[in-house]
Amino acid sequence: MDVVLDFLGTFFFAISGSLLAARRGFDIVGSVLLGALTGLGGGVVRDLILGVTPTAFSQPIHLAAPVAAAALVFFLDPAVERMPHTLLVFDAAGLGLFCTTGAVKALQLGMNPVAAALLGVATGVGGGLLRDVVANRDPQLFDPDDIYAVPAMLGAASITVAWLTGWYSPAVVVAVGTLVFTLRLVSLRFGWRVPRAVARRRDDRRA
Amino acid sequence: MDVVLDFLGTFFFAISGSLLAARRGFDIVGSVLLGALTGLGGGVVRDLILGVTPTAFSQPIHLAAPVAAAALVFFLDPAVERMPHTLLVFDAAGLGLFCTTGAVKALQLGMNPVAAALLGVATGVGGGLLRDVVANRDPQLFDPDDIYAVPAMLGAASITVAWLTGWYSPAVVVAVGTLVFTLRLVSLRFGWRVPRAVARRRDDRRA
Amino acid sequence: MDVVLDFLGTFFFAISGSLLAARRGFDIVGSVLLGALTGLGGGVVRDLILGVTPTAFSQPIHLAAPVAAAALVFFLDPAVERMPHTLLVFDAAGLGLFCTTGAVKALQLGMNPVAAALLGVATGVGGGLLRDVVANRDPQLFDPDDIYAVPAMLGAASITVAWLTGWYSPAVVVAVGTLVFTLRLVSLRFGWRVPRAVARRRDDRRA
Repeated sequence: MDVVLDFLGTFFFAISGSLLAARRGFDIVGSVLLGALTGLGGGVVRDLILGVTPTAFSQPIHLAAPVAAAALVFFLDPAVERMPHTLLVFDAAGLGLFCTTGAVKALQLGMNPVAAALLGVATGVGGGLLRDVVANRDPQLFDPDDIYAVPAMLGAASITVAWLTGWYSPAVVVAVGTLVFTLRLVSLRFGWRVPRAVARRRDDRRA
Repeated sequence: MDVVLDFLGTFFFAISGSLLAARRGFDIVGSVLLGALTGLGGGVVRDLILGVTPTAFSQPIHLAAPVAAAALVFFLDPAVERMPHTLLVFDAAGLGLFCTTGAVKALQLGMNPVAAALLGVATGVGGGLLRDVVANRDPQLFDPDDIYAVPAMLGAASITVAWLTGWYSPAVVVAVGTLVFTLRLVSLRFGWRVPRAVARRRDDRRA
Repeated sequence: MDVVLDFLGTFFFAISGSLLAARRGFDIVGSVLLGALTGLGGGVVRDLILGVTPTAFSQPIHLAAPVAAAALVFFLDPAVERMPHTLLVFDAAGLGLFCTTGAVKALQLGMNPVAAALLGVATGVGGGLLRDVVANRDPQLFDPDDIYAVPAMLGAASITVAWLTGWYSPAVVVAVGTLVFTLRLVSLRFGWRVPRAVARRRDDRRA
């Protein structure tokens, strides 16, 4: 179960990486590599912190996801591009899956609840952050007009509470992941914000 | 003792991260995340290399530091901004603490002296490097008009020598950390430099 | 044997890092640090994923490579600069060595073949990717006019096949590494390409 969701999350994130590669004019190899970094990066960071062999390497089947994603983008991109927000939708799907499965794996390995929730968030936002950092652009994670991390935090916290209260089940993972996915897209649709890093608004955005 | 210093260093670095978030116009969540990355990043890298669970996750109390730092910046930022070099001062304090405590932890875990000193430097400069890399700006670490890494190298080397000669004590950690902090600020005040990467000066800084 | 090749690869990559530091006008400390990150980064990532102490820290002799590289660039840079493609040549040498030795180390530690080949590629391209990411420039790895990763993939795959078929020997490592090095330079000389990330060419390279 977890493996299937993990594979799907990897695939969704990899699509967002390959789409960025397409928009930046990278070649097909760069598309696979950026997709792999986006799809597998968050989980690798999580597993390194948990002290286990990253699933991307212990279960090489996960490597098929970025290859499939790059192939999909290669052949379907014109269609994909007609849907301007496609990257955001796939990214949101990966976010929903990884912030929940990441927290679950940490809990299964005996991490304390706070760390488990944080690792869920790291798994969810890590791949996209790595994607933006290596593609040398401002991370979507820090876009002040976009509450990217908030749904992931709520999802990771919810699944951790469910685990502690004994309500955890694969169905709950799917439910919470879907909730995060929906919350992410709704927040984009209605442009929800959180306060800036300082109480008063500022002009020197680039100082 | 080490935990207290570790918490303080995390807090100081987190302030520098949250101040950068404020200057870049990030929201409060980005302020917490960038602060956490800055404050905890160096220690996480150190612990991953040491093969132990990062203290940020094994002792979640450390996570309170970035939250407190983001709150401080949120409410006090206008005042903080009236002190233009605040970011540099807090960054220097974190540098002084982490280059010493990082080397000490490596020595306590049986690392060889050279590696321990290097890990001290990595702990000291790692968080700030991650901060600048994810914020998509040229790392302060490589600013040719600023000897950022030199005080950290001296501090990490000094504490390692103190350990080998049996002169190590918590007081020595505080003393060396304070020395690094002072050296860092004095070098900024007087614009101390080290030679360029090439013997002759060059014009094509961006070639 | 592996240690010698590992040291050489570290040295070659470190040269490319120090040359970039020189071109960006960094100081000598930044030259050592960027060289170290370039030369040791790929191996550290590989070893963290393998769950062993990074050789850069367990065998501090490796740290001599970036220091030697920075010194060479410092004193010889004007001559080096008269050879415009020097950075590419040293980078290619490091790529050839690391994609093979990286895969070998993973196989020696019992990784499955697919993961071992991938770790070889990661060891080969990781250091240069870190170099470009921290130097805040578009990674050479994603340059659509340059098949940077392809020779590394072929090399890591070849050495893995040689291992599985029992044909592995240090001589094979040298042969494959040399082949990767040659293929890399030949591909640069003749401007070999692979298809873009999308079937049709695009104009909005930066969209």
